[in-house]
Order: sequence, then structure tokens, then C-alpha cells
Amino acid sequence: MDNLGWVAIISILTAGMCMAVGSIGPAIGEARALVQALNSIAQQPDETGTITRTLFVGMAMVESTAIYCFVVAMILIFANPFWTYFISGIKG
Amino acid sequence: MDNLGWVAIISILTAGMCMAVGSIGPAIGEARALVQALNSIAQQPDETGTITRTLFVGMAMVESTAIYCFVVAMILIFANPFWTYFISGIKG
Amino acid sequence: MDNLGWVAIISILTAGMCMAVGSIGPAIGEARALVQALNSIAQQPDETGTITRTLFVGMAMVESTAIYCFVVAMILIFANPFWTYFISGIKG
Amino acid sequence: MDNLGWVAIISILTAGMCMAVGSIGPAIGEARALVQALNSIAQQPDETGTITRTLFVGMAMVESTAIYCFVVAMILIFANPFWTYFISGIKG
Amino acid sequence: MDNLGWVAIISILTAGMCMAVGSIGPAIGEARALVQALNSIAQQPDETGTITRTLFVGMAMVESTAIYCFVVAMILIFANPFWTYFISGIKG
Amino acid sequence: MDNLGWVAIISILTAGMCMAVGSIGPAIGEARALVQALNSIAQQPDETGTITRTLFVGMAMVESTAIYCFVVAMILIFANPFWTYFISGIKG
Amino acid sequence: MDNLGWVAIISILTAGMCMAVGSIGPAIGEARALVQALNSIAQQPDETGTITRTLFVGMAMVESTAIYCFVVAMILIFANPFWTYFISGIKG
Amino acid sequence: MDNLGWVAIISILTAGMCMAVGSIGPAIGEARALVQALNSIAQQPDETGTITRTLFVGMAMVESTAIYCFVVAMILIFANPFWTYFISGIKG
Amino acid sequence: MDNLGWVAIISILTAGMCMAVGSIGPAIGEARALVQALNSIAQQPDETGTITRTLFVGMAMVESTAIYCFVVAMILIFANPFWTYFISGIKG
Amino acid sequence: MDNLGWVAIISILTAGMCMAVGSIGPAIGEARALVQALNSIAQQPDETGTITRTLFVGMAMVESTAIYCFVVAMILIFANPFWTYFISGIKG
Amino acid sequence: MDNLGWVAIISILTAGMCMAVGSIGPAIGEARALVQALNSIAQQPDETGTITRTLFVGMAMVESTAIYCFVVAMILIFANPFWTYFISGIKG
Amino acid sequence: MDNLGWVAIISILTAGMCMAVGSIGPAIGEARALVQALNSIAQQPDETGTITRTLFVGMAMVESTAIYCFVVAMILIFANPFWTYFISGIKG
Amino acid sequence: MDNLGWVAIISILTAGMCMAVGSIGPAIGEARALVQALNSIAQQPDETGTITRTLFVGMAMVESTAIYCFVVAMILIFANPFWTYFISGIKG
Amino acid sequence: MDNLGWVAIISILTAGMCMAVGSIGPAIGEARALVQALNSIAQQPDETGTITRTLFVGMAMVESTAIYCFVVAMILIFANPFWTYFISGIKG
Repeated sequence: MDNLGWVAIISILTAGMCMAVGSIGPAIGEARALVQALNSIAQQPDETGTITRTLFVGMAMVESTAIYCFVVAMILIFANPFWTYFISGIKG
Repeated sequence: MDNLGWVAIISILTAGMCMAVGSIGPAIGEARALVQALNSIAQQPDETGTITRTLFVGMAMVESTAIYCFVVAMILIFANPFWTYFISGIKG
Repeated sequence: MDNLGWVAIISILTAGMCMAVGSIGPAIGEARALVQALNSIAQQPDETGTITRTLFVGMAMVESTAIYCFVVAMILIFANPFWTYFISGIKG
Repeated sequence: MDNLGWVAIISILTAGMCMAVGSIGPAIGEARALVQALNSIAQQPDETGTITRTLFVGMAMVESTAIYCFVVAMILIFANPFWTYFISGIKG
Repeated sequence: MDNLGWVAIISILTAGMCMAVGSIGPAIGEARALVQALNSIAQQPDETGTITRTLFVGMAMVESTAIYCFVVAMILIFANPFWTYFISGIKG
Repeated sequence: MDNLGWVAIISILTAGMCMAVGSIGPAIGEARALVQALNSIAQQPDETGTITRTLFVGMAMVESTAIYCFVVAMILIFANPFWTYFISGIKG
Repeated sequence: MDNLGWVAIISILTAGMCMAVGSIGPAIGEARALVQALNSIAQQPDETGTITRTLFVGMAMVESTAIYCFVVAMILIFANPFWTYFISGIKG
Repeated sequence: MDNLGWVAIISILTAGMCMAVGSIGPAIGEARALVQALNSIAQQPDETGTITRTLFVGMAMVESTAIYCFVVAMILIFANPFWTYFISGIKG
Repeated sequence: MDNLGWVAIISILTAGMCMAVGSIGPAIGEARALVQALNSIAQQPDETGTITRTLFVGMAMVESTAIYCFVVAMILIFANPFWTYFISGIKG
Repeated sequence: MDNLGWVAIISILTAGMCMAVGSIGPAIGEARALVQALNSIAQQPDETGTITRTLFVGMAMVESTAIYCFVVAMILIFANPFWTYFISGIKG
Repeated sequence: MDNLGWVAIISILTAGMCMAVGSIGPAIGEARALVQALNSIAQQPDETGTITRTLFVGMAMVESTAIYCFVVAMILIFANPFWTYFISGIKG
Repeated sequence: MDNLGWVAIISILTAGMCMAVGSIGPAIGEARALVQALNSIAQQPDETGTITRTLFVGMAMVESTAIYCFVVAMILIFANPFWTYFISGIKG
Repeated sequence: MDNLGWVAIISILTAGMCMAVGSIGPAIGEARALVQALNSIAQQPDETGTITRTLFVGMAMVESTAIYCFVVAMILIFANPFWTYFISGIKG
Repeated sequence: MDNLGWVAIISILTAGMCMAVGSIGPAIGEARALVQALNSIAQQPDETGTITRTLFVGMAMVESTAIYCFVVAMILIFANPFWTYFISGIKG
């Protein structure tokens, strides 16, 4: 197997694992925040507006780390500079 | 085994593992939120509407990380640019 | 062993592991929700209807991640594009 | 060892591991639900009917993930399309 | 070592590991249910009948996942279709 | 090393590991049930009879998973069909 | 290294590991039961007789899983049928 | 495979893993802070301003470690001095 | 390296590891029992006699699993039947 | 692959992993401190000034360990003495 | 490397690891007992004599498992029968 | 690859890992102390001076272990005696 | 690499790892005892003398396991009988 | 690579890992003690003197295990008897 092949398979592998590992933290974290929000609403129905607003702004911030991972995965699959280099020269 | 074969098996492996690993976090996270929602409803039956609405919006947000993984898996199986490159040239 | 063989064994392995790993999260998560529902019913027998309805809708949502895994496993066994490519050409 | 042999051993290995790993989650999950049900019955003997009904419907839903794994294991042992392909051609 | 030997050792290994891993979940799960049942009996001696009945029906359901594993192990040792195929042809 | 040797060492290894791994769950599980029984007796000395009866029936059920493992280990050492096959033909 | 050597070293390794791993569960489990018994005696000195009797019967049952492992280890060292077979034929 | 290829694949692999591993801590950490903020708002609605201000300043500080990882990943993909060295000399 | 050497090094390795792993469970278990005994004495100074008696009988029982491991380690070092066999024949 | 290549890839790998692993502790640690600060502000709004001052000084101290890791990563990428040595001599 | 060398290095490795692993359990266990003793003394200063006496007898018993490991390590370094055998014959 | 290269890459790898692993403990530990300090200040605003003084002296002591690791990493990169030896002799 | 080299590197590796692993248990254990002592002093300032005396005697006992490890590490570095044997004969 | 090189790289690796692993326990342990001290000061401001004295004596004792590790690391880097032996003979 030549350079071209190795770059391809490592890009595939890394993109998939990066997305998979990177989604564990945000998924569990956002869920915990959601749990607390539901709890707070039950305790303080009058503050529902403030709570849900803070919740969604905060979740967007947590979501950002998942999006970093998604961005890296997409770069590796569709805009990989190493792959571009190798297929331009066809010298592997 | 040539490049074509390696790209194929790594794509299969990565797609499956990405989906599997990526479903652990959301499944556990959504379930926790559901647990809390059931608890809150039992405590505050009057807020059932607000609670379930917040629950389903939040779960959709958590679900999004599982969907990112599903998207990556589908791309790797059905729209893999590396595989397309190799089978177009038939040069591996 | 040629490409055909490798694609076959990796597909088998990935399908099985994807299903196995992907069933851990939903199984534990749904069970937790069920635990809470039973608890809430015992505390608020009057809300049994609301609780079980929310429970089953939520469990269906959690179940969805297990179903994603099942779908990926079935695709890998019965509708694998890489396998189709290799057996069509009989060139491995 | 040829393709035929590899497909055979990987199918055996995957079927067994898929079943084994896939039974951990449901077993623990169902047991937790059972624990809570026993607890709720002790607290609210009058709701025994509702509780056991919800319990068994919920356990069936949790059991479904174990059954997905069992199905995949059986497919791999008795209806494996890759094995069928290889023994039909006797070309491995 | 030929195909016959590999199929034999993998079947042995898988059967043993499947049984071993698959017995952890049910053993711990059933024990937890038993713990709760003993606790509930001590709290509500009058409900002993209902509790033990629910306990044994539930444990049977949990036990089912261990039995799936036992079934798979027995199939792999005594009714293994791959082994049957190879010793019928004596071509390995 | 020939088939005969491999089957022998894998059988030894699997039997030992199956027994070892399979004894962890039941040992811890039975002990937990015993803990609770001692606790319940201290709380409700009048229910000692009911509690110990439920305890020993339940422990026997938990013990069953350890016995499945012991059975598999004994089959692999003393009634292994693969070993029987190989030493009957003395062709390995 | 021939078959004889492999069978010897695997038997040694398996016997030791089986004993080691198999002693973790019972040791921790019995200790927990002992902890609870000491606690119960301190709470209900009048029930000391009943408690210690249940304790020692229960510990013997938990100990049984360690004894299964010890039996397997001893069989592998002193009554190993595979070893007997190989040294009888001196053909390895 | 030559130096050029190795540098390429290790850069890809490291960038992806660095991003994935580095997002776990911040995601879980920020979510915990968000959980507490929602809780505090429910307890002290009058301090909402102070709490959210402290929350977002603190989250930005926690986010900084994820950004360090993102920076390292981007450097490895787009401004890698080792890769620059090797492709300038075309001597690998 | 011949059979003699392999048997020697595996015996050394197994004896050490068996002792090391096998001492973790009893050490932690006995310590927990001791913790509870100290606690119970502080609560019920009048029952010191009963408590310490039960403690030491119970600890001896827990200690037995460590002693099984020690016995296996000593057998492997000083009374190893496989080693005896090989050095008697000096045929390795 | 020569010395130059190995030094390059190990530097890349180590820099990335060092940053990734080193960001887990500070991220989680700072988040916990932030959680407590939010909690304390809700309990003692009058001490907000003291609390936030202590919080940010303390977080800077915790952040220092992440910065040590970032420094090491930057040294390995941009000021690596081993790399400098090898490319100066062009003798690898 | 000949038998003599292998026996030497495995003995060194096993002795060190056996001591290291075997000291974790007793160290943590004894410390827990010490924690409880300090707690009990603070609660019942009048029972200091009884408590410290039970503490040191119990710690000696827990320490015994560390001493078994130390004994095994010393036997492997200074009284290793396998090493003695090999250097007596100088046939390796 | 010669000695020079191996010493270089192992030094790089060890320095990075030593720093990364060594920063986990202090980061989490210091954060916990900070958490408690914030809590204590909220409970006892009058003791703020004593608490922060003890906090920073204690954190410096905990920080010392991170600094040991940083020192070792710097020695390995910039004052490595093994590297000095090899490049002085240019004999590898 | 000859025997002499292997013995040297394994001794170095084992000594370091033995010390490192062996210091985890005592460090955490002693710290827990210290935590409790500080707590007890705060609750019972009058018993400070008794508490600190018991603390330091107990810590010395826990420290003993770390010292066993340090002794083994020093023996392996400075009084290693295997190393002595090999360098005396200069036959490796 | 000759003996000299192997001894060098293993010494580097062991020194770094020994320091890194050995700093986890003390860092976390000392931090816990510090946490408790801050807590005790807040509860008993009058005992600040006694508490901080006991704290720093105890932390020094815990720190000792980190110092053992640092000593071993320094011996391996700067006073390694195996390295001294090999470079004195220049026979590797």
C-alpha cells in the first residue's frame, strides 16, 4: 500500500473516531443541564423563562465542542490538505 | 490486499464503530432527562405542559450529536470521496 | 486472503460489535426511565396516564439510537456497497 | 487458511461476543426496574396491578435490545450471506 | 494449522467467553432484585406473597438473557454449522 | 504445534477463564443478598423464617449462573467434542 | 517448543490466573456480609445467634464459587486429561 | 511508505484525536457549571444577573482548554513545520 | 529457549501474579470488616467480646481465599509437576 | 524511514497527546470550582466580590498546569532541540 | 538470549510487580481502618484502649497479605529454585 | 535508526507524557481545594484571611508535584545526559 | 542485545514501575487518614494528643508498604543478584 | 541498537513515567487533606494553629512518597549503575 492509500484510510478512521469520541462529552453534559432545568422548572415555575433562556445559551456553548469535532471530521474527509498534496503530484 | 480493499474495510469498520460509540452518550443522556421529567411531572402535575415541551426540545438537541455520528457513518458508506477516487482510476 | 474475504469478515465483525455496543446505552437508559416511572406511579397514582404516556414516547426516542445501530448492522450484512462492488467485478 | 475458514471463525466469534456483550445492559437494566417495582409494591400495595403491568411492558421494551443482538447472532450463524456466497462458489 | 483446527479453537474460546461474560449481568441483576425483595418483605410482611411472586417472574425474565448466552454456547459446541461443513468435506 | 495441541491449550485456557470470570458476578451478588438478609433479620427478627427461605431460594437461582459456567468448563475439559474428533482420527 | 511444553505452560498460567481472579469476588463479597453481620450484632445483640448462623451458612455458599475455581486449578495441575494424553503417547 | 507519508498520517491522526479527547473535559465541565447556574437561579432569582455573568466568564475560561486543543489541531493540519520542511526539500 | 525454560519462566510469572492479584480482594475486604468492627465497638462497647470474636472468625474465612492463592503460588514454585516431569527426562 | 522522519512524527504525536491529556484535568477542575462559586454566590450574595476574586486567582493557578502542557507542546513543535540537531547535520 | 537470561529477567519483573500490585490493597485497606479508628476515638474517647488494640491486631492481619507478597518477591530474587537449577548445570 | 535517533524520540515522548500525566493529579487536586475554600468563605466570611492564606500555601505544596514533572520534562529535553553522551562521541 | 543488557533494562524498568505503582496506595491512604484526623481534631479538640499519636503510628504502618516497594527497587538497582552473576562471569 | 542505547532509552522512559505516575497519588491525597483543613478551620477557627500544624506535618509525610519517586527518577538519570558499567567498558 502506498502513501495515497494510507492517507485515505487514516483520514477515514480519524474522522469517524473523532466524531464518535467527541460526541460523548457534549451528549452527557447537555443532558445533565437539561435534567437540572426540568428540575428547576418544577421547583420554580415562575422562572421558566429565565431558566430556559440560560439553558439554551449554555447548551449552545457546550454543543460548540461537538461542533469543533464535526468540523475537524469534515475537514479530514472533504478538505484534507495532505490528500490534496498527494493526488496533485500522483507521486506517493 | 490493495488500496481499494483497505479503504473498503476501514470505511466499514469506522462507520460501525462511529455509530456504536456515538450512540452511548445520547442514549444515556436522553434517558436521564426523561427520568427527571417523569419525576418533575409527579411532583408538579400542573406544569406537565411546560416540562414535556422543554424535554422534547432538549432531547432533540442531545439527539443531534447522535445524528452527527449517523451522518458521518452514512457518508463513509455511501458518499466516501476516497473510495470514489480509487474506483474512478482503478489504480490502487 | 483477498479483498473479498477481508470485506466479508470485517463486515461481519463490525455488524456484530455495532449491535452489541450500541445496545448497552439504550438498554440501561430505558431501564432507568422505567425505574423512575414505577417510582412516580407509586407516588402519584393519579398521574399514571400522563406518566406512562411520557414514558413510552421518551423510550421510543431513546430506542431510536439502538435502531440506528441495528440499521447500520443490517446495511453492512445485506446491503453493503463495498461487497457489491467487489463481487460484481470478481476482481479482488 | 483461506477465505472460507476466516469467514467461519469470525462469524463464530462475533456471534458469541455480540450475544455476551449485548446481554449485559438488558440484564442489569431489567433487574433495576424489577428492584424498583418490588419497592413500589411494598410502598403502595394498592397499585400492584398498575405497577406490574407497566413493569412487564417496559421490560419487554428493554428486552428488545437483547433480542436484536440474539437476532444478529442467529443470522451470523445460520443465515450468513457471506458464508453462503463463498460455499456456493467453492472459490475462496 | 488448517481451517478445521481454527474453527475448533475459536468455537471453544467463544463458547466459554460468551458464557462467562454473559453470566455477569444476570447474576448481579438477579441479586439486586433479591436484595430489594428481602428488604420489602422486612418492611411489608403482609405483602410477602405478592412480592415473591413478582420477584420470581421478574428473575425468570432476567435469567432469560443468561439462557440466550447458554444456548449460543451450546450451539457453538454441539451444533456448529461451520464445523459440520468442514468435517463433512474433510477439505479444510 | 499441530491442531491437537492448539485444541488442548485453548480448552485449558477457556475452561479456567470461564470459571474465573463467571464466579465474580455470583459471588458478589450472593454476598449482597446475604448482606440484606442479615440487615432484614436485625430489623424484623419475627420474619426470620420467611427471609431465610426467600434468601436461599434466591441464592440458588443466582448460583445457577455460576453453575452454567462450571458446566461449560467441565464439558471443555472432560467431554470436548472437538478434542474427541481430533484424537479419534489422529489426523491433526 | 512442542505440544507438551505448550500444554504445560498454559496449564500453569491458567491455574494461577483462575485462582487469582476467582478469589476477588468471594473475598470482597464475604467481607461485605461480615461487615453487615457486625453491624447487625451491634444493633440487635439479642439476635446474635440467628445472625451468625445465617452469616456462616451464607458465607459457605459464597465460598463455594472460590472452591469451584480452586477445584478447576487443581484439576489443571494434577489431573489434566490433555497432559495425560500427551505424555502417554510421548508424541507431541 | 516514506517520511512524507508518515508525517501526513500521523498529523491527521493526532489532530483528530487531540480534538476528540480534548473536548471531553470542557464539555462535561461546562455542563456541570451550567447545571449549578440553573440551580442557583431557581434558588435565588434575584441574583440572576450576577450568576449568569460569572457563569459566562467562567465558561469562557474552561472553554480555553478546548481552544488550545483546537489550535494545536489546526497547526498540525495547516501549519505543520515538519510537513513544510519535508515538502520543501522533496527529500524524504 | 526450550520447554524447560518456558516452564520455569511461566511458573515464576504466574506465582507472582497469582499472589499479587489474589491479595487485593482479601486485603480490602478484611479492612472493611475491621472498619465496621471499630465502628460497632464505638457504638456498643458492651458487645466488644461478641464483635471481636465474630470479626476474627470471619476474617479467617476471608483470609482463606488469600491462602488458596498462596498455596497455588507455592505449588508452582516448589512442587510443580510439569517442571518435575521435564527435569526428570532432561528431554525438553 | 530515517531519524529525521521518526523525530518529526513522534514530536507531532507527543505534542497533540500532551495537549489533549493535559487539558482534561484543568477543564474538569476549573469547572468544579466554578460550580462551587455559583453555589456560594447564591448562598451569600454579599460576598460576591471576595468569592469571584478568590475564584479567578485560583483558576489561574489551576490553569497553570494546562499552560505547562501547552508550553511543552509548542516547544516540541517549534523549538525542538532534537529536530534542530538532525536538520543541521543533515545526517540522520 | 538463553534460558538463564530469561529466568533472570522474568524473576526481576515478577518480584517488582508482585510487590507493587500487592501493596495497593493493604495500604488502602489499613488506611481505611485507621480512618475509622480516628473517628471512633473522637466519638468515644473512653474506648481508646479497646479501639487501638483491635486496630493494631486487625492491621497486622491485613498487613499479612502484603507480607505474603514480600515473601514471594524475596523468594524469587534470593531463593529461586529455577535459577538455582539452571546455574548449577550451566546448561541453558 | 541508530542510538541517537532512539534516544531523541524516547526523550520527546517521555517528556510530553510525563508532563501530561503529571498535570492531571495537581489540576484536579488544586481545584478541589479551591472548591472547599470558596465554600468555607461563604460559610465563614470572617475567616477569609486565614482561609485564603492556608489555601495558597497548600496549593503551592500540591503544585510542587506538577513542578517535579515539569523539571523532569525540561531535563529530558534540554539537559539529557544520555543525549549529551551520544552526540559527543558521534558514535551511535 | 545480550543477557547483560536485558537484565539491566528490565531491572531499571521494574525498579521505576515498582516505586511508582507502589506509592499510589500509601499516598492516598495516608491522606485519607490525615483528612479524618483533621476532622476529628475539629470535633474533639481535647483529644488532639491521642488522635495525633494514633495517626502517626498508623501512618507509619501504612508507609511500611511503600517502604517495601522502595526496598525492592533499591535491591534491584544496587544489589541485584542476577546482575552480579552475569557481570562476574562476563559470560552473557 | 546496542546495549548502551537500550539502557539509555529505558532509563529515560522509566524516569519520566515513574515521576508522572508517582505524582498522581500524592497530589490528590494532599489536596484532600487541604480540603478538610479548610473545612475544619471554617468550623473551628479557634483550632487553626493545631490544624495547620497537623496538616503540614501530615502533608510532608504524604509528600515523602512523591519524593521517593523523584529520587528513583534522579538516580536513573544521573547515577545509573547499569549505564556506568556499560560506558566504562565501552563494550556493549
